[in-house]
Amino acid sequence: MAPPVDVNQQTAADMKAARSRTSISVHIVRNYLYGGQKQWDLRERLEKILVQEQLFGKQHRDFLGRTDQYIRATAITNRLNELRRIHSWSAEEYNTAMSLLSEILPISLHDVAFQPVFLGQGSPALMENYWDLVNEKGIQGCYLQTELGHGTNVAQLETTSTYIPETQEFEINSPSLTSTKWWIGALGKSATHGAVQAKLILPNGKDMGPHLFFVQLRSLEDHKPLPGITVGDIGPKAAGGMAAQDQGFARFDHVRIPRTNMFSKFAEVTKEGNYIQPPHAKLSYGGMMYIRASMIPSAAWTIARGRVLIMQDHFKPNHVTAATVAIRYTTVRRQGELATNGLERQVLNYPSTYYRLLPILSRAFVLIELGRYTIKALDEMQQRLANRDTSLLPEMHALLCGLKVLVSTHGVSDIETARRSMGGHGYSAFAGLGRLYIDYLPSVTFEGDNFVLDGQVVRTATKLCNAVLFSTSAVTKLPPPSVYLRLLTANSTPPLVTASTWHDVSSVVLLLEWRAALMVKNFTQTQAKGEVDANINQRLAKAVTEAFVAAQVGEMINNLTTLPSEDANVVGRLYRLYLLTTAESALVDLFSVGLIHPTGAGDPTQDLRLAVKALCLEILPNAIGLTDAFGFSDWSLDSALGVSDGRVYEALWQRVQMEPMNKDEVTPAYDPYIRPMLQRGQAAAEQKMKLKSKL
Amino acid sequence: MAPPVDVNQQTAADMKAARSRTSISVHIVRNYLYGGQKQWDLRERLEKILVQEQLFGKQHRDFLGRTDQYIRATAITNRLNELRRIHSWSAEEYNTAMSLLSEILPISLHDVAFQPVFLGQGSPALMENYWDLVNEKGIQGCYLQTELGHGTNVAQLETTSTYIPETQEFEINSPSLTSTKWWIGALGKSATHGAVQAKLILPNGKDMGPHLFFVQLRSLEDHKPLPGITVGDIGPKAAGGMAAQDQGFARFDHVRIPRTNMFSKFAEVTKEGNYIQPPHAKLSYGGMMYIRASMIPSAAWTIARGRVLIMQDHFKPNHVTAATVAIRYTTVRRQGELATNGLERQVLNYPSTYYRLLPILSRAFVLIELGRYTIKALDEMQQRLANRDTSLLPEMHALLCGLKVLVSTHGVSDIETARRSMGGHGYSAFAGLGRLYIDYLPSVTFEGDNFVLDGQVVRTATKLCNAVLFSTSAVTKLPPPSVYLRLLTANSTPPLVTASTWHDVSSVVLLLEWRAALMVKNFTQTQAKGEVDANINQRLAKAVTEAFVAAQVGEMINNLTTLPSEDANVVGRLYRLYLLTTAESALVDLFSVGLIHPTGAGDPTQDLRLAVKALCLEILPNAIGLTDAFGFSDWSLDSALGVSDGRVYEALWQRVQMEPMNKDEVTPAYDPYIRPMLQRGQAAAEQKMKLKSKL
Repeated sequence: MAPPVDVNQQTAADMKAARSRTSISVHIVRNYLYGGQKQWDLRERLEKILVQEQLFGKQHRDFLGRTDQYIRATAITNRLNELRRIHSWSAEEYNTAMSLLSEILPISLHDVAFQPVFLGQGSPALMENYWDLVNEKGIQGCYLQTELGHGTNVAQLETTSTYIPETQEFEINSPSLTSTKWWIGALGKSATHGAVQAKLILPNGKDMGPHLFFVQLRSLEDHKPLPGITVGDIGPKAAGGMAAQDQGFARFDHVRIPRTNMFSKFAEVTKEGNYIQPPHAKLSYGGMMYIRASMIPSAAWTIARGRVLIMQDHFKPNHVTAATVAIRYTTVRRQGELATNGLERQVLNYPSTYYRLLPILSRAFVLIELGRYTIKALDEMQQRLANRDTSLLPEMHALLCGLKVLVSTHGVSDIETARRSMGGHGYSAFAGLGRLYIDYLPSVTFEGDNFVLDGQVVRTATKLCNAVLFSTSAVTKLPPPSVYLRLLTANSTPPLVTASTWHDVSSVVLLLEWRAALMVKNFTQTQAKGEVDANINQRLAKAVTEAFVAAQVGEMINNLTTLPSEDANVVGRLYRLYLLTTAESALVDLFSVGLIHPTGAGDPTQDLRLAVKALCLEILPNAIGLTDAFGFSDWSLDSALGVSDGRVYEALWQRVQMEPMNKDEVTPAYDPYIRPMLQRGQAAAEQKMKLKSKL
Repeated sequence: MAPPVDVNQQTAADMKAARSRTSISVHIVRNYLYGGQKQWDLRERLEKILVQEQLFGKQHRDFLGRTDQYIRATAITNRLNELRRIHSWSAEEYNTAMSLLSEILPISLHDVAFQPVFLGQGSPALMENYWDLVNEKGIQGCYLQTELGHGTNVAQLETTSTYIPETQEFEINSPSLTSTKWWIGALGKSATHGAVQAKLILPNGKDMGPHLFFVQLRSLEDHKPLPGITVGDIGPKAAGGMAAQDQGFARFDHVRIPRTNMFSKFAEVTKEGNYIQPPHAKLSYGGMMYIRASMIPSAAWTIARGRVLIMQDHFKPNHVTAATVAIRYTTVRRQGELATNGLERQVLNYPSTYYRLLPILSRAFVLIELGRYTIKALDEMQQRLANRDTSLLPEMHALLCGLKVLVSTHGVSDIETARRSMGGHGYSAFAGLGRLYIDYLPSVTFEGDNFVLDGQVVRTATKLCNAVLFSTSAVTKLPPPSVYLRLLTANSTPPLVTASTWHDVSSVVLLLEWRAALMVKNFTQTQAKGEVDANINQRLAKAVTEAFVAAQVGEMINNLTTLPSEDANVVGRLYRLYLLTTAESALVDLFSVGLIHPTGAGDPTQDLRLAVKALCLEILPNAIGLTDAFGFSDWSLDSALGVSDGRVYEALWQRVQMEPMNKDEVTPAYDPYIRPMLQRGQAAAEQKMKLKSKL
C-alpha cells in the first residue's frame, strides 16, 4: 500500500509544478493582452489603491440579501467617486478602476447608457446647461426604453410625448399599464434623471415614432419622485442575478418638460411644432448600438484605452475569469484513475476536461483582440456619424448584431461549461462562477434578443448576397464584414477538405468563409421556393458571423510576429484552436453544403477531431502560464477554487467559517420547528414499540 | 392609423382564443399523464389542503435571504409532518403532497437518501432498534459520502472506520482536512443521524474499502453536536441555488459507534474482527443507484404510485413547468411583425419560438412515460437483489448512468431555453424559471458527474459490442438497453434515408439504433488503433442512451391505442417530434457513420428539418391544451408569466408591489451614499460653470 498522500499539501505542489512547465514569458503575453506594459502598470497601480478599501472586499458579498447588496453598491459607488477626485483620475483611470472592482453598480447605467446618449444626441443648448452636471455625476441618469408590454420592437412603444406649442413643452404620458417603463437599470431607487424613449406626437396629432427626451425623475433636494411620476424597483431577478442593480419601473401622468429637453441633435421640433427630420432613420438607435459594441470585449474584458466607457454588466471578464478559475482548480484537483506516480490523475489532464476548457481559453484570447477591432471600427463610424455620413451604418449594425449574439452566447455557455468542469465544488458560491453566470445571463436577451438579432444579420446578408449574385454591375467593393461573399463572384470552386486542411490556418479560414457563402446562397434559393425551416436564421447568422471572426483570427495570427517566437507559437496555437473548434461546431453545416463528404474511408470528421485533441495536448503544458498572463490577483478573482497558490481546500474551509448560519451552534429553527417534529416522531415510534411488545 | 389596442386586455383574449383551438380532451390527456383519474383526484384533494396553509405560499419566497429560506423550509417540514398525522396520510399521499409543494426541504434527504439506505442495507438488529424512529422521523438522517477532497471516486475516500475488537466498536475518524465530509444535504443544521461512508479498517490493518455506518451526529436532547464531531453548513451555493438546503460538512475525531451500527445486510464484521464478503462488489452502491433512478421522472415529475420516494431536488417538474410557463407567456406576448389583424404576432407563432418550445413539451411527455418504465425495471431489479441475484446489475447500472446524463442535461438546458424564449421578462424572478434552473443545476454534477458517467456507459457498451462481434458462441439474448447491438449480428445493412424516413416512426427508431450500433463498432476499432478523440465518450454515451429511449418512444406510440383517436393523434405527434429532434441533434453522427450522405440534390438535412417544422405546425394549435393537461393551478405553478388566464402584465405588476425595496419612497442608501456623491458632482459642475463664465 502506498503511503497516504496529504491531498491538501499536494495541491500547492501541483500548482508549482504546473508553473514550472510554462514555456512562455508570462509578462510578455500579459502585456500583449493588455495592449502594452503601460496599461498593465496602470491596472496594478489602481488595484493597489482599491485593495486598501475594506468596503471593496468581496468575501462577505455572498451572504447579503438583495437590499443590502444594493446599499453596498451605492456605498462603493460613492467611495469610488471620492477616490476619483482624491487621485484626480482620468476617465481611463476611472474606467479601469470600475473594471477592476468587478461589481454590479447602478452608476454603470449612467456611464454606459445615459452619458453617451447625452453626448451623442444632446442639442448644443442641452449640453450647455447639463453636460457638466452629467459628467461630474451631479445628477444620476438612466435610459428608459423598454416597457412592460414591449421591448425590442421600439416602434410599438406606448409612452407618448406630445408637443404643446402654447407653452412650448412636451407632455410625457403613460397611457396604459403596459406602457409602464420596465427593466430600467438604476431607475428603481437611484436615478435622478432619465433619457425617455417616447412616441413624439405633433400638434397636428401626427405620431412621429420613438424619440428621446430628457426628464427629471427625482428631486435633487430630497430624492423624492417628482409630481406625476410613479417609480419603483421591479423586484428580484432570476436566481438572484444582478441583485445590486435597481432595475425599475416608471409611469408618467402628463408630465411636462421644456421643448429644449428633447434630445434633438439629429431631429427636432420647432417652437411652432414642426418636425425637422434626421438624416438617417437609424440614427436614433445610436445609443443602443454603442451599448451592443461594448459587449464584445466584455465577454473577455475591458480593453479600455480611455475611450471605452465601462459597463459592469457588459465588461465583466467572463471568459477570462471562467478559464482562470477552472484551469487552476482542475490542475490541483485529482480524481479517478491512478497515474504512474500512484496519485490520481489531475482532472485537467482528462481529455473530456481539457477539451472543454482550452477552447474557452482560446475564446478569451480571441475576444480580447476582437474587442479592440470592434471598438476601433465603431469609433470610426461614430466620427462619420458626427459628420452625418451614415454609409457605414447598415453593415456595422448587422455586424454588431452578429457579434453580440456570438459573444453573449459563448460567454454564457462558457462560464457554465467551466463551472461544470469543476464537478461538485463548482456549485459552491465560493467557486465564484455562479454569480458571474447569473449576472451575465441577461446579455442573451437584452439589448436586442439574440433570436431577433439573428434575423437582422440574415436580412443584411441576403440583401448583399442577392446584390452579388444578380447585380448587373459587378459589386466591386464588399464591406469588411461581408468579404466572404467574394467567393460567390469569382469563378472559384470550394476547396477539397483533406487531413492537411486542419493544419493550415488559411485553409480553415477559407473553409469557414465558404460555409457562410454557400449557406447564404442556398438560403436565398430555398427562400424563394418557400422551403425555409424553423431554425435557419440561427444557423445562418452564426455562419456569417463566424466567417468574419475567422478572417479576423487569421489576421491575429499574422500579427503575432511582434511577439518573441515561443510566445507567438503558443498564442498562435490558441488562435488555431479557436478556428478548429469553430469548424468542429460547424460540422453539420459543412456537411449540409457539401464541403465535407464521406470518402468511404471511415469517419470523415475524424481528422478534425484528432487535430483538435493534438492541439489541446500541445497547449496543455502552458495552460497555467496562459491564465497567469491574465494577471488576476486573488483579491480581484475572488474565487476559492481559483487561488493562485493552488491551496483550494484551505480556501474553501476559510470561506465556510464566515457563513452566518454557522454562528449558532444550534439553529434557531430547532426550537420552533425541528424539535416538535422529532418529538412527534419519537412518541409515535415509542407507541409502536409498545404495541409490538404487547403482541 | 388603427385604434390603439389595450395590450393588457388582449392577453386574456389571446389565452381564451388559444384554449378554444384545443382539439384534445384535456382531462383525458391529463389522466393519461397522471396514470389514471384516481391519481389526479388524489392530487386535487391534497392540493386543496395545502393551499389553505399560509406558510406554504410562495409569493414572498424570492425576497428572503438564505437563513430565512432555511427556517421557512423547516417550518414547512414541521407543518407537513403535522398534516400527515392529522389526515393520516399514506406514504403515497405524503409523497404527492411533498411533490405538490415543490420546495427545497432538508427532510428530502432523509426520505430519498437516508431511509432507503436504512431499508436496503440495515441489518435485522439495526432495523429492530431504529426503523420505527427512522420511519416516523423521530430522528432526521442524512447520507455522508462526498468529502472535500473526493466525490465520485469513492475508492479514494479518506474517512476511516477502524474496528476495535476489544470494545466491539468502530472508530470513525477524519484523518485530514480533505477527508472532511462535504456537500451533505441536511447535515449543516438539521440532521441528527447519518449514514457515513468510510473505509473499513480491520484489526489486522487491512483496508476493505468504503462501507456504510450509522452514526449519531447531534443530541436528541438539545440538538448540539455530539463530542468529537465538528459539523456546520458549507455556505451558499452558486447564484443562491438550493438556498433552503443546509448542505453541511462534518469531521470526526475518533468517534466510537457500536459494531451493530454497521449497515451490514450484505457485508459485516464479526465480533472477532473478521470480514464477511458481499455477494457482489457493486451492492454497496445500491443507495446511490436508487437516487439516480429517481431522477428520471424527476426532470418530468413525480409519477408516484406510493412506491417512489420523492426527493424534492430530483422530482421537481422541470420540463413540465418550463414548458407550461413559456408556452403560456409566448401565447399572450405579442411582439414584432404586424399580423393581418393589425396586431403584432404572438411570440409563440414565430418559427424560432415554437421550434424551441414544442420539443421541450415533447420531452416532458416522453420523460413522464420513461420514468414509469425505469421505476418498474428498478423495482424488479431490487426484488432480485433481495434474493442476492445480481445478474441485472451491470446493465441496469449503465442504463441508469446514461439516463441520468440524458435527463439532467436536457432538464437544465430546457429550463434555460424556455426562460430565454420569454425574452427580457424571463429574467425576472417572478417568471419562476430562474429558481427552477438554479435548483436543478447541480443534477449534472452530483450523484456521479455526467462526464464520468458517460465513461461507464461506454465501457458497458464496448464490452457487449466486443462480445457480439467476436464471441464464438452467438450472443443470443441481449438485455433490453442493448438490443440495438442486434444490428451488428444479423446480416442486416443500414437503411437508406429518404424524405419518407422522417414520416415513419419505426424508420426513425431504427436509424437511431443503427447510429448507436455503428458508432460503438467504429469506436472499438479506432480504440484498438489508439485514434480516440477527446470527446468520444460524450458522443457515444448519448448515441447509446438515445437508441434505448427511441425504442421506448416507439413503444409509447404503439401503446397510445388506449386513448381516443384525436388525443392519441396529438400525443403521438409529440412523441414523433421527440424522435425527429433527437435525430436532428444527431446529424453529425448520422453523417459520420455514413447513414446520411449527400445525394447531389441539395442539402441532405433539409427533409428532416422541414419535417420538424411541419410537425410543430401540426402541434401548435394544441400547445395550450397540452400544457393545461399538466394540471397546474396558479398556486402550484407560482409564475407571473405562466398565469392560467393569460393576464401576465397584471400579475407582474402585483408581484412588484411586494418588493421590500419599494417600501421606502426614498432608499436608505440616499442619505449616506447617493446624496454625497450628487452634491460633490453638483459642486464640481458649478465651479466649472463659474470658470467658464469668467472666461
